[in-house]
Amino acid sequence: MSDTATLSRLFSTIDQDLEVVDHTFQERATSGLELLNSAATHALNSPGKRLRTALTLLSGKLINYRFEKLLPLSVAFEMVHLATLVHDDIIDNASTRRGLPTVNARYGNNVAILLGDYLFAKTAGLIAEVEDFRIDRLFSETVATVCEGTIFELLSSHRMDLSIDHYLERINYKTACLISACCKGGAIVGGGTDAQIALMTQYGVNLGIAFQIVDDILDYTGSPTTIGKPTGNDLRQGLVTLPLLYALRNEQNGRVERVERIMNQKKPSDAEIDTVVRWVNATNAISESLELARHYAARATALLSEFPASPERAVLMEVVDFVVERSR
Amino acid sequence: MSDTATLSRLFSTIDQDLEVVDHTFQERATSGLELLNSAATHALNSPGKRLRTALTLLSGKLINYRFEKLLPLSVAFEMVHLATLVHDDIIDNASTRRGLPTVNARYGNNVAILLGDYLFAKTAGLIAEVEDFRIDRLFSETVATVCEGTIFELLSSHRMDLSIDHYLERINYKTACLISACCKGGAIVGGGTDAQIALMTQYGVNLGIAFQIVDDILDYTGSPTTIGKPTGNDLRQGLVTLPLLYALRNEQNGRVERVERIMNQKKPSDAEIDTVVRWVNATNAISESLELARHYAARATALLSEFPASPERAVLMEVVDFVVERSR
Repeated sequence: MSDTATLSRLFSTIDQDLEVVDHTFQERATSGLELLNSAATHALNSPGKRLRTALTLLSGKLINYRFEKLLPLSVAFEMVHLATLVHDDIIDNASTRRGLPTVNARYGNNVAILLGDYLFAKTAGLIAEVEDFRIDRLFSETVATVCEGTIFELLSSHRMDLSIDHYLERINYKTACLISACCKGGAIVGGGTDAQIALMTQYGVNLGIAFQIVDDILDYTGSPTTIGKPTGNDLRQGLVTLPLLYALRNEQNGRVERVERIMNQKKPSDAEIDTVVRWVNATNAISESLELARHYAARATALLSEFPASPERAVLMEVVDFVVERSR
Repeated sequence: MSDTATLSRLFSTIDQDLEVVDHTFQERATSGLELLNSAATHALNSPGKRLRTALTLLSGKLINYRFEKLLPLSVAFEMVHLATLVHDDIIDNASTRRGLPTVNARYGNNVAILLGDYLFAKTAGLIAEVEDFRIDRLFSETVATVCEGTIFELLSSHRMDLSIDHYLERINYKTACLISACCKGGAIVGGGTDAQIALMTQYGVNLGIAFQIVDDILDYTGSPTTIGKPTGNDLRQGLVTLPLLYALRNEQNGRVERVERIMNQKKPSDAEIDTVVRWVNATNAISESLELARHYAARATALLSEFPASPERAVLMEVVDFVVERSR
C-alpha cells in the first residue's frame, strides 16, 4: 500500500474534520495583499502529510473531542510548521520542496521572510482563539525551541565529530518538539489530566524523534521520486545526520578524512555526494539507524498503552508504525 | 535641550518602571544557545527611544496603572518591534543601524532570520502573560499588519507615481499600526471603556503617522551624527517618501524624469543621492511635509483632550510635541 493510501485509511475517522482544517487554513493564511496571498497559496500548494493536524485532532479525540477548540489549534500548528519551512528554505538556500519551487526561489528571499513572519502572526491569532493560557505558553515555547533547533543545526553543520546524543538533542529541538506540542496541545484542549497530558507529550517526543531519524535515513535510501528531493540532500547542505554518524563511528581514520574532505567543500560534486551515500548504504549504518528509530517508536507505543483501548488509541499506535515503515 | 534629555524629562514619572521593562526585556530575550544570545545582546546594544514602551505604560496609567500586566505587554511590543527591525535590516540589506553593525552584517542573514523568529516566539509568551484574549488578538493583527506594511513598502519601492494617500496607508500599516497597538493595549489593560480604548487607538494612529512623516523628513534634513544614518538613506533604498512625493508633485516633467533616472539605478552614487536630497530641500516639500505631520499631531492632541486632565495626559500630549519637534 502506498504511503498516501495508508494515511488516508489511518485518518479516515477524522477525514471530514481534516478537510475543515485545510479549508480554514487556506482562509486564514489569506492576506489582502495580492503578493503575500499569492506566495501563501504557492506555499500551500505543496501539501505535507498533515501529520501535525492529525496528531492534534487524534490526541484531543483520545480524551474528549472538542473540535471547535481543536480546529484553531491544529490550523495554528500546521501554519507555524509551514512558516518555519518557508524560513528554513531561505536558510538552506533550497530551490525546491516536494518537487515545487520554494517560496524564496519563486518570489525571492524578502517575500519569503515576510510570508513566514505573516504566517507566525496569523498563528498567534489562531492560538488566541483556543482561549487557554496553557496553549499560549506552549505555542511560544515551542516556536522558540524550533528556532533554537535551527541555530543548533546551523552550528553543527559540516561537523562529523558530534555525538549521537548531540544529534538526538538537535532533532528533538528541531522536529520532535513541535510534533510533541501537537499531541500535548490536543490533550490539553481535550481536558486531559496532568498525567494524561504528560503521557501525550512524551508520546509526541518519541514519535517525533523516530520520525526525524527515518527522514534522515530516507535521505540516504530514498529515491528522488519517492521523497520528492534528491538523495543526499542533507549531505549537500553539510548536514551530518544519524546514518553518517553511525557509518563514521566504526571506521578507520582514512575513511573519515576522505568524507571530511568531501563535506568541507563549498559545493561537493554529485559524484562525490553519491560516493558518500553509497558508502553509508554499504555499512550497517542504515540498519543501526532504523533500530534506533524503532526503539523510540516502541517507547511511543508503550506510552500510549497507558490509555484504555479506543479507536483513537489504535490509530495513534498505527501512526507510530507508519512513521517508521513509510517510504517517504 | 537634546532629544535624549527631553525624553528623560518627559518619562521621569515612569523612569523606574522603564528600567524594570529594560531589565525584563534583556532577561526574556536570552536563549540558552550562545550564538542566539550574543546576537540578541548585540541587537539590544543599539537602544531606541523606548517610545513604544513609554506609550504602553502611559496609556495604561492614564486610566488605571496595573504595572504587573503592563510590564509583559510593553516588553512584548518593544520586542516585536526589535524583531521586525532585525528582519527589515536583512530585507534592506542594511549594514548599520544607529551607528552599530546590524545583526545581519555581524552574524549573517541566517542568524538574523532566526533571531527575529526567536524574538517573535518570545513575544507570544509575554503576550500570554497578560492573560487577556483581546490582547492576544491585538498582537496577532498588529504583527500581521506590520508584515503587510513591509510588503507594501517593497512593492512601492522606486515608484514615484504613487499618491500621498498611498504613502499614508503604507506608513499606517508599517509604523502607526504598532504605535497605535501600544496605546490601545495600554488602555485595554488599564481597564478602559470601549470609548476610551477607541480614543487611545486613534491617538496612537495619528501619533504614529506624525512620527513616521517626521522620520522621513529627517532622512532629508538630518545629519549623519544626529540620526545615526546617512541622510538620503531612504532614497538609496529606493524608498519614495513624503518629501520627495511633495517635491515631485509640482515639478516639471524634466525634473521628474531626472529623479526617476537616478532612482531607477541599481546603486545611485552618493553625489546623485545628494543632488536629489538638496533639490528636495530647496523646494517647499519639507515645510509641506512638516505641516502634514503637525496636522496629524494636532489630531492626536485633540483626541487626548477628551480625557480629563492628569499628569499622564500632559505627558502624552508632550510626547506628541516631541515627536514633531525632535531632531532625530
